[in-house]
Amino acid sequence: MQQWVYRFSSELTEGNKDMKNLLGGKGANLAEMSSLGLAVPPGFTISTEACTQYYKENKTINEEIKKQILAALNQVEKLQKKKFGDKTDPLLFSVRSGSRVSMPGMMDTVLNLGLNDETVKALAEKTKNERFAWDSYRRFIQMFSNVVLGLGHSLLEHQLDDLKTARGVKEDTELNAKDFQELVTVYKSIVLEELGRKFPSDPMEQLWLAIGAVFNSWHNPRAQMYREMHGYDSSWGTAVNVQAMVFGNMGETCATGVCFTRDPSTGAKIFFGEYLVNAQGEDVVAGIRTPAPINEKSKNESNKNMKTLEEIMPETYEELVATYKKLEAHYKDMQDIEFTIENKKLYLLQTRNAKRTVNAALKVAVDLVSEGMITKEQAVLKIYPEDLNQLLHPRLDPKAKKTLLASGLPASPGAAGGQIVFNSETAQEWAKNGKKVILVRQETSPEDIGGMAAAQGILTARGGMTSHAAVVARGMGKPCVAGCSALMINYNDKTMSFGKDKYREGDYLTFDGATGEIYEGLIPTIEAQMSEDFATYMAWTDKFKRLDIRTNADTPEDSKIARSFGAQGIGLCRTEHMFFAPERILAVREMIFAKTQVDRKKALNKLLPFQREDFVGIFKAMNGLPVNIRLLDPPLHEFLPHTENDMKELAASLQISMNEIRERKDFLHEFNPMLGHRGCRLGITFSEIYQMQVRAIIEAALMAKKDKVVVLPEIMIPLISDHKELELLKKEAIEEIEMVFKELGNKIEYQIGTMIELPRAAITADKIAKHAEFFSFGTNDLTQTTYGLSRDDAGKFLPIYTSKNIYARDPFVVLDQEGVGFLVEHAVKIGKKANPDLHCGICGEHGGEPNSIEFCHKVGLDYVSCSPFRVPIARLAAAQAALKWPATAMEKHGSVKENRI
Amino acid sequence: MQQWVYRFSSELTEGNKDMKNLLGGKGANLAEMSSLGLAVPPGFTISTEACTQYYKENKTINEEIKKQILAALNQVEKLQKKKFGDKTDPLLFSVRSGSRVSMPGMMDTVLNLGLNDETVKALAEKTKNERFAWDSYRRFIQMFSNVVLGLGHSLLEHQLDDLKTARGVKEDTELNAKDFQELVTVYKSIVLEELGRKFPSDPMEQLWLAIGAVFNSWHNPRAQMYREMHGYDSSWGTAVNVQAMVFGNMGETCATGVCFTRDPSTGAKIFFGEYLVNAQGEDVVAGIRTPAPINEKSKNESNKNMKTLEEIMPETYEELVATYKKLEAHYKDMQDIEFTIENKKLYLLQTRNAKRTVNAALKVAVDLVSEGMITKEQAVLKIYPEDLNQLLHPRLDPKAKKTLLASGLPASPGAAGGQIVFNSETAQEWAKNGKKVILVRQETSPEDIGGMAAAQGILTARGGMTSHAAVVARGMGKPCVAGCSALMINYNDKTMSFGKDKYREGDYLTFDGATGEIYEGLIPTIEAQMSEDFATYMAWTDKFKRLDIRTNADTPEDSKIARSFGAQGIGLCRTEHMFFAPERILAVREMIFAKTQVDRKKALNKLLPFQREDFVGIFKAMNGLPVNIRLLDPPLHEFLPHTENDMKELAASLQISMNEIRERKDFLHEFNPMLGHRGCRLGITFSEIYQMQVRAIIEAALMAKKDKVVVLPEIMIPLISDHKELELLKKEAIEEIEMVFKELGNKIEYQIGTMIELPRAAITADKIAKHAEFFSFGTNDLTQTTYGLSRDDAGKFLPIYTSKNIYARDPFVVLDQEGVGFLVEHAVKIGKKANPDLHCGICGEHGGEPNSIEFCHKVGLDYVSCSPFRVPIARLAAAQAALKWPATAMEKHGSVKENRI
Repeated sequence: MQQWVYRFSSELTEGNKDMKNLLGGKGANLAEMSSLGLAVPPGFTISTEACTQYYKENKTINEEIKKQILAALNQVEKLQKKKFGDKTDPLLFSVRSGSRVSMPGMMDTVLNLGLNDETVKALAEKTKNERFAWDSYRRFIQMFSNVVLGLGHSLLEHQLDDLKTARGVKEDTELNAKDFQELVTVYKSIVLEELGRKFPSDPMEQLWLAIGAVFNSWHNPRAQMYREMHGYDSSWGTAVNVQAMVFGNMGETCATGVCFTRDPSTGAKIFFGEYLVNAQGEDVVAGIRTPAPINEKSKNESNKNMKTLEEIMPETYEELVATYKKLEAHYKDMQDIEFTIENKKLYLLQTRNAKRTVNAALKVAVDLVSEGMITKEQAVLKIYPEDLNQLLHPRLDPKAKKTLLASGLPASPGAAGGQIVFNSETAQEWAKNGKKVILVRQETSPEDIGGMAAAQGILTARGGMTSHAAVVARGMGKPCVAGCSALMINYNDKTMSFGKDKYREGDYLTFDGATGEIYEGLIPTIEAQMSEDFATYMAWTDKFKRLDIRTNADTPEDSKIARSFGAQGIGLCRTEHMFFAPERILAVREMIFAKTQVDRKKALNKLLPFQREDFVGIFKAMNGLPVNIRLLDPPLHEFLPHTENDMKELAASLQISMNEIRERKDFLHEFNPMLGHRGCRLGITFSEIYQMQVRAIIEAALMAKKDKVVVLPEIMIPLISDHKELELLKKEAIEEIEMVFKELGNKIEYQIGTMIELPRAAITADKIAKHAEFFSFGTNDLTQTTYGLSRDDAGKFLPIYTSKNIYARDPFVVLDQEGVGFLVEHAVKIGKKANPDLHCGICGEHGGEPNSIEFCHKVGLDYVSCSPFRVPIARLAAAQAALKWPATAMEKHGSVKENRI
Repeated sequence: MQQWVYRFSSELTEGNKDMKNLLGGKGANLAEMSSLGLAVPPGFTISTEACTQYYKENKTINEEIKKQILAALNQVEKLQKKKFGDKTDPLLFSVRSGSRVSMPGMMDTVLNLGLNDETVKALAEKTKNERFAWDSYRRFIQMFSNVVLGLGHSLLEHQLDDLKTARGVKEDTELNAKDFQELVTVYKSIVLEELGRKFPSDPMEQLWLAIGAVFNSWHNPRAQMYREMHGYDSSWGTAVNVQAMVFGNMGETCATGVCFTRDPSTGAKIFFGEYLVNAQGEDVVAGIRTPAPINEKSKNESNKNMKTLEEIMPETYEELVATYKKLEAHYKDMQDIEFTIENKKLYLLQTRNAKRTVNAALKVAVDLVSEGMITKEQAVLKIYPEDLNQLLHPRLDPKAKKTLLASGLPASPGAAGGQIVFNSETAQEWAKNGKKVILVRQETSPEDIGGMAAAQGILTARGGMTSHAAVVARGMGKPCVAGCSALMINYNDKTMSFGKDKYREGDYLTFDGATGEIYEGLIPTIEAQMSEDFATYMAWTDKFKRLDIRTNADTPEDSKIARSFGAQGIGLCRTEHMFFAPERILAVREMIFAKTQVDRKKALNKLLPFQREDFVGIFKAMNGLPVNIRLLDPPLHEFLPHTENDMKELAASLQISMNEIRERKDFLHEFNPMLGHRGCRLGITFSEIYQMQVRAIIEAALMAKKDKVVVLPEIMIPLISDHKELELLKKEAIEEIEMVFKELGNKIEYQIGTMIELPRAAITADKIAKHAEFFSFGTNDLTQTTYGLSRDDAGKFLPIYTSKNIYARDPFVVLDQEGVGFLVEHAVKIGKKANPDLHCGICGEHGGEPNSIEFCHKVGLDYVSCSPFRVPIARLAAAQAALKWPATAMEKHGSVKENRI
């Protein structure tokens, strides 16, 4: 028979801290503390599997589970020597949810379960404390009505407030037993009136309803939304903890509180906490009364005159200190502990690894290592890589007042505020005049680069997490919210709205690129800050990681930033961004309009010095590190002028008619540019373009070499679908390179390789590998083609897909291991077999995403490449992957596949 | 040591007819005839491998090959008792190319090789025939200078004509030895003048040059083009046949001729041929003299008064008759035989399976079976499936004069002529008035269906073999030339040009959809004709094929045509084409503009009766056969109005502003519609659309069932990328179906399945198969995504790709077995393993292409589906595949993969 219920008590404990998936975090830790011999009120945990079973059986708790619950309940009765529902000495329970990760939105807690008109009297009698008993009863009705029966929270709350007003008192503690008894009567009549049902008086009925309510709350809209945001699986389910009540509200020798073993906002080694005398747990959270500091160090402006726990119950405080030390040593991490004191006796209700800021996390990790409590390996595994974002980008001041206007995709982290403008030119102009601007566009295109660079942040109405705006913004380390579907832009009027109010050019707006939230007006931000522990910690990651971390950078500036963050080379230098500067774009357009190869070459020759200069700068910034340069990738029509003005300018400059410009534009128009005349297809049809680029790279490398720079250029040919493309283009490239070597009388080592970004390239990677020195997986495009999904168009329906759980995560954010990953793994396997010297990396946006990096590690890639501001995140993720999946473990299993979670 | 040279003679023959790949067709058959004891002048064949080696070694014939050639040459000398280059009794050679398939454009023949100023005298002396010797010499210089030295053909030819004019004669036979001797002198001086080199007099030099010229001709532009057109591999290489000369030009007892064992244009069992007295082989081909009939039955208007071979050399003729019968019986096929008679002795120079019209081929195949010469299996293997096109579509009259204007892709076979129009409305209007029109468009869209149906044929400037125009035209059996890149259209002026002359609306044009060629004016056409043998032959194919042949049809009319061609069901019924009729499109647009689900449902309810009616018609036409209906696939913006007028009409009808229409169009615009919001993504986001369609299908099925029609509906959900999409949509479909069953109080069997058209679907086919009753491979889209190649945009560079041999064939025409095929095979394998009842077919355009059908057979698909007019082709291809790859052979090898050629 399957075990659905796990008990915990000083006598018998069936769980432990490692059983979080089955018992939830709370249940696992209650079991662990029980085993440690700490004073935990006895109880039992109904497993997450029981929750799954509940949904399978159409939301019913089956007989077997009920049986196991009743058996566990009996055992608690025996231990406590009381009976649930007993009319002389009733046992009461708390019922609390607990999934494997804490999840706001789920049902939290019902205390004092088991009280009714009879048991309340027994409780009063037994404890000789009528006020306590009725206080507990009214609390129970309040909580149960709200979280189990679904009655609006404020309805009963108001009654309490009204009563206090009527009595002329401020604090609950000033009310007496009679008052509470009255309240109970009023509460019950409101429940009857509002819900059309009597408040359930049978303790067993109360229990079943409460357990069901916890299970149901797993699928609360808020919990669902939270799971989606964090990529948690909706199949996990929640556990339910049923635990004997202890009372912090039995009088002045009773209390309830929360403490942290270190300071959660700085990580400093300070024992820190708050408590309330004569109260129950939820009073601390609800903020009805101001809690007191547990010790001197916990004092602040608002509580500095209150008595500390240390003062009023020194022995209990000492016990608490001993307990926190024991727990921290046991869990080897900073703890967040909930406790209740019943008649000076300390009970522990929860412990967990404390939430903390990333600065605190770094300090705690570094301190724990120097205290000898954990190893560096353990320290490196402690921080979620994405959290480093907090260190690298400005944040909104958490204390500022905010009016949320709308939400979009959190495309590039960081807070940005400024005046809205609707085109790139205005953005640059205003920025030049010292204004802070937010660039608002339907979507961005390569033409907008200048405006994006000038803006504080970018906001778009269309496009997904790997849209142009998102990718470029991340590259620049610039905040961006993309695909805000509520955003309607009118370029003509220079206005925008999120449905109702209109915003004009120059109006202020602030957004948070880490959450996707957009706020009215200008909100203060906190600048990025890197603690002194950051360097120590990051140095540890480099010890453990197997993957190299490169960066995607197109300019010397970006290259320098990335290098300062620890990048070990450039994994993707896109050459096309270089084409958009005003002095270059004309030559590009001249090239596009050329009618003969001779004219095309003439135009390309004008571009050559620019490209060469860019490359020299990048080579210098990356002295001694490899620089992977991708030859031209986008279709030529991306470089054509869009506005009437630009077209006129071009016509004048090329001395051709506007008609000719329009015809050329028409001719170059493509129905599906993503699947069109781009990448190596340009190189095949216009070999002179790639020849010019190859020449620029090699000439630049030789120039840098002259200046004693160590240059390691890698020439990358994009969008290969067949090995013959690479064979031909490689041959042509080598011919050009040999010519340059001859002309300049000098040589240099270089590599030629390809992007693997089409399914067919992955499928035939063995043949391609014979002509390639490296593979770089372009997982953006590979995801697009494997899914048949345009990243620029998916914004309209992808949110529906993730909300219906059809796609667990946005595949442009987290690499799809099953489909896209199959192709990557296949290509690495057959590619390295065909060419053992093949060097493999990834340069898609996934190269900076921790889950995807773990996958890259497991399938045996040699490096990942990501935008400069994600390099630290990638370093940490790579180190964690290596610690989780050491080479030995992988070899032992023979296949990386079998090794996947 | 590798054998590079294979000898043939009455004494020693090293090849046979099955060695075509190594010896070429000509060499293999020369060897075969030698072995049969027929009088074949001795000689040797230099293998195709030697040709490949020649290219490998930078166009040199290596020493080993030369050694083997000289050894073989010596043997011929011994047999003929003459010596090559000998000054008393010289041996002469013919040198001819011969690849595995006959290939126009390659170097053909050099006769009389070995002659020079000395050997010509010896030949004259030895044969006592000075005229013959000098005639042979001048012929040799003429041929050698042209085909080996590359001198323009007409230069020497003119000298011959001038001489005849000077002598006042008409025929070469009227010239004497002296005349030819003079010609030789003139020829040699022209060679020296034009080429700056003396005509080579050393026989060995002549031989090496001739062999090299044959090898070089393999890469002639014309030969290359021919290979591309026919998909032949450029790596094959050509063999060279070097053979002792026999002479048809030694006098009146000599002759040369060609005969066919049956009539190549009708297939009738008539021995048939032409000959020339006192001539060499090329005279027959060159048409310098009118050849005479070999027998009474070969007489026609132009030669009826000439003497037959039967009359002038009855014994030799009898020998020829005996020989042809022997050859036909041996080869079990109609032969095309070249012979030379030297002093009444018959020599055979070539035999091969005769080229024939498809009608002749059918008759020959059926006759050979009834004559007991071949089995039905052999008969079915004799006809190339594509050739059946000749039977099914009108052709250009081969005798008509034609002025070629341009070429495009041969998108849909058949000849079409008429007046050009530039839009669908005009096409329909003019056609209504009895005019024959050609619809000329940049590209077509679903809106053009009406005009396409009204036109004789469709001509487009853009798009590839699977563009909208091509696919729809093939479906309609309507001729189409697509992607004619030279075509410039000006819609405003209603004019077009191919670079120079302008053509206006109403001008006449004719094109051949089978070749892609476009001609000026109206050219007479010959109607499609099906011989009586067609039915007999096609019935045999059905005996052997394992694959079912279904059709892609969207209307009852198409369904009926396809069924008459032998279709065994519908493999793809596209529902969206049904939406474009004027009375329906408004409801579709209303649905698109609906702001709420309620409004959307209201609009959909207007469409329901139309869809239901269509389905009833199709079910009736396909009584007893399965009908696979695909739910809505294209993105909604395809249904929006494009012209200002249509937009105004819509605005009026929906009572909304033009602004709102434009905004909606903008909102629905997609950057890459092929990768956008389409297919099942529509079903996921607007479930009511699929619900309506499913309801229409099932209601129609139940209505048809009432009329005693046997209905087998299959509901196909397109563009699945993840099994969860199918799971959800299937559940919703079943709910709707159960509702219809309940409402109408009747039930029906049905299937629900999916298209596999995205790489991810193929990769995860095992999971998808658990929710699908069938897979239909949409290889058009699968090719697009696997290659990252838009079929609508590829037209601009795909021709360059195939011409540079980067892609051996257009992957939209012939299924790419290596890449796309990998995914198909993978999906079938894991899909059938996960669900053994899974039924698999293909509905992409490849389903009608013979090579691809063979692949489908081999990987174990259950059916292919193609446009109605390709059904016979598919039936034949499927039968051939089954005969080539019987189940036993496939089982024996265990894996279909190993079994591939």
